[in-house]
Amino acid sequence: MTNNSIRIPSGQMQDVLHKLFLKHGFSEVKARILAKVHTESTLDGVNSHGINRVPLFIEYVEKGVVKVDAEAELSETFGNIERWDGHLGPGIINALKCTNRAVELAKLLGMGMVALRNTNHWMRGGTYGWLAADAACISIIFTNTKANMPPWGGKDSRIGNNPFIVSIPREEGHHVVLDMAMSQFAFGKIHDYKLRGEKLPYPGGWDEHNELSDDPEKILANERGLPIGYWKGSALSMILDMLVTLLSAGDSTRTIAAKEFETGISQVYLCIYPEIFSDRNLQEKLLDEIVEYTHDVEPMHPGDKTYYPGERAWHNRARNLKEGIPVNKEVWQRVIKLAEA
Amino acid sequence: MTNNSIRIPSGQMQDVLHKLFLKHGFSEVKARILAKVHTESTLDGVNSHGINRVPLFIEYVEKGVVKVDAEAELSETFGNIERWDGHLGPGIINALKCTNRAVELAKLLGMGMVALRNTNHWMRGGTYGWLAADAACISIIFTNTKANMPPWGGKDSRIGNNPFIVSIPREEGHHVVLDMAMSQFAFGKIHDYKLRGEKLPYPGGWDEHNELSDDPEKILANERGLPIGYWKGSALSMILDMLVTLLSAGDSTRTIAAKEFETGISQVYLCIYPEIFSDRNLQEKLLDEIVEYTHDVEPMHPGDKTYYPGERAWHNRARNLKEGIPVNKEVWQRVIKLAEA
Repeated sequence: MTNNSIRIPSGQMQDVLHKLFLKHGFSEVKARILAKVHTESTLDGVNSHGINRVPLFIEYVEKGVVKVDAEAELSETFGNIERWDGHLGPGIINALKCTNRAVELAKLLGMGMVALRNTNHWMRGGTYGWLAADAACISIIFTNTKANMPPWGGKDSRIGNNPFIVSIPREEGHHVVLDMAMSQFAFGKIHDYKLRGEKLPYPGGWDEHNELSDDPEKILANERGLPIGYWKGSALSMILDMLVTLLSAGDSTRTIAAKEFETGISQVYLCIYPEIFSDRNLQEKLLDEIVEYTHDVEPMHPGDKTYYPGERAWHNRARNLKEGIPVNKEVWQRVIKLAEA
Repeated sequence: MTNNSIRIPSGQMQDVLHKLFLKHGFSEVKARILAKVHTESTLDGVNSHGINRVPLFIEYVEKGVVKVDAEAELSETFGNIERWDGHLGPGIINALKCTNRAVELAKLLGMGMVALRNTNHWMRGGTYGWLAADAACISIIFTNTKANMPPWGGKDSRIGNNPFIVSIPREEGHHVVLDMAMSQFAFGKIHDYKLRGEKLPYPGGWDEHNELSDDPEKILANERGLPIGYWKGSALSMILDMLVTLLSAGDSTRTIAAKEFETGISQVYLCIYPEIFSDRNLQEKLLDEIVEYTHDVEPMHPGDKTYYPGERAWHNRARNLKEGIPVNKEVWQRVIKLAEA
């Protein structure tokens, strides 16, 4: 919470967004789903890919980049792998459909995969990890994006930050959900540091002299982000782009980067159904052991705390459900205006 | 090549290693396979997980940590997922078997997975990525390890560097093979910097004051490595440990860390057979586009060069096949002694 934020009850946010999406041509059902997903991402504390992104999403809808009525369709089947075509429909609707389908395939066969091409930005990747985990599945899900980081050794941005999600179901919804982009810092986060007049805690991109920098202003001027682990994240980003492109027969970051807007992206949804391994209690025990071991560790510096992936989202959700969701005042005003326009 | 290395023809290395493994109780067939894999890793320039690790492997064999005659066996089948028990056999033999089995499952069903428990160190993880790619499969393969990095925010090493391999087949064996551990630098590499009296190019671990350090001596004194991307690699390491443990019903890093030696580790081998998507030419075209785009980029600094994952291994192989494999003289003397002992 900063001075510039207010707390909005989640029910109110969902109602405003529902109205907004209806106004912009979405069906009753889809408007409701989109409102729910954007609200849930914000509830979990991921405002950057929840409420904050709504104006940009609406801009894409108005420009026809996102096709309001289009929906992903099965195009080909190969064993336990399916290829779907997103027909440039809304990324959230397509991603939910493909996650649910990968869950279905996993429950039939132990493991299933859906590769999706021609889709749009899915907002928060973690949404689909939580969904798969709620359906008792392990998931490995990833996407390509426009180019926003230089490949290691190169000068121009030619690789995407390609979010990578892994989720594992746990009892009472305390799932483990990793949702990480290949960039050390999201550009949204770098922008926040700039607004606060602070440096990044670690280098996060390249300045105009081709030097690594922790100065948000210099990094934003060039839009050349730093991959996690330098050459390692660069390589991982490349190979994720190769996987989504090959498996979906869709567009790669190269093709996406050549478009005016980030659209027609490619994604993979892989689900595994661990309950076919039968002993749910053993699974919980093994998982609890790892969570405790990594969690209950002496802090490196006083006040440090170690979290398991997804733990903070879950804490935020509980708190924000009770107290309302912290939202930037200007962002909320823009959303209200869009809903009333 | 440094002053302290000599070039050994690959045939000679393989013969010496074959003799060495026979001397230490391996069957004719297994000694031949182990000699081949160690030689190939060294040919590709990964001495740390090829020839340099042979003395440690033999020590583990002599101590009975690695069971010479044990071999992985199928324990359970669930749809397109199989669980195997490694019976503490040699990691290379078990890993080859499980990779080949995952390839078979993928060719039957499009995609297949083998989860292996109770195995030993597989030496170079990339070996199994190259093998799957040679068999025309995409692979995603990963392992847990002993604890050698603190989880983000914590003081003690409680997560492993958990190597993660992804491979994609290309024509003429120019496969894309990513082989990366979750640590920014391998401890072997940090040791090399120490021997040369150099600092690391980037921070690689924690010093005795719990500060990030680029001083190899200080990092080695504590054995607390830095995960790639700080909190991100820490989270990825945790979740990879969870996946291998759950899927194989095997030991986690916690349990492995409590043992006297690193043994009884858990691994996952996932293969996808892209030729069932039928159009091999399209696959090659899509892949070539990404390789060219990320590869043929203006360098960040004069002399910089961008590689695709696996490219340097392939260059090293071609050169070392011709000129002999560069090996540290003392390491080679130790190996010769072990073969003659």
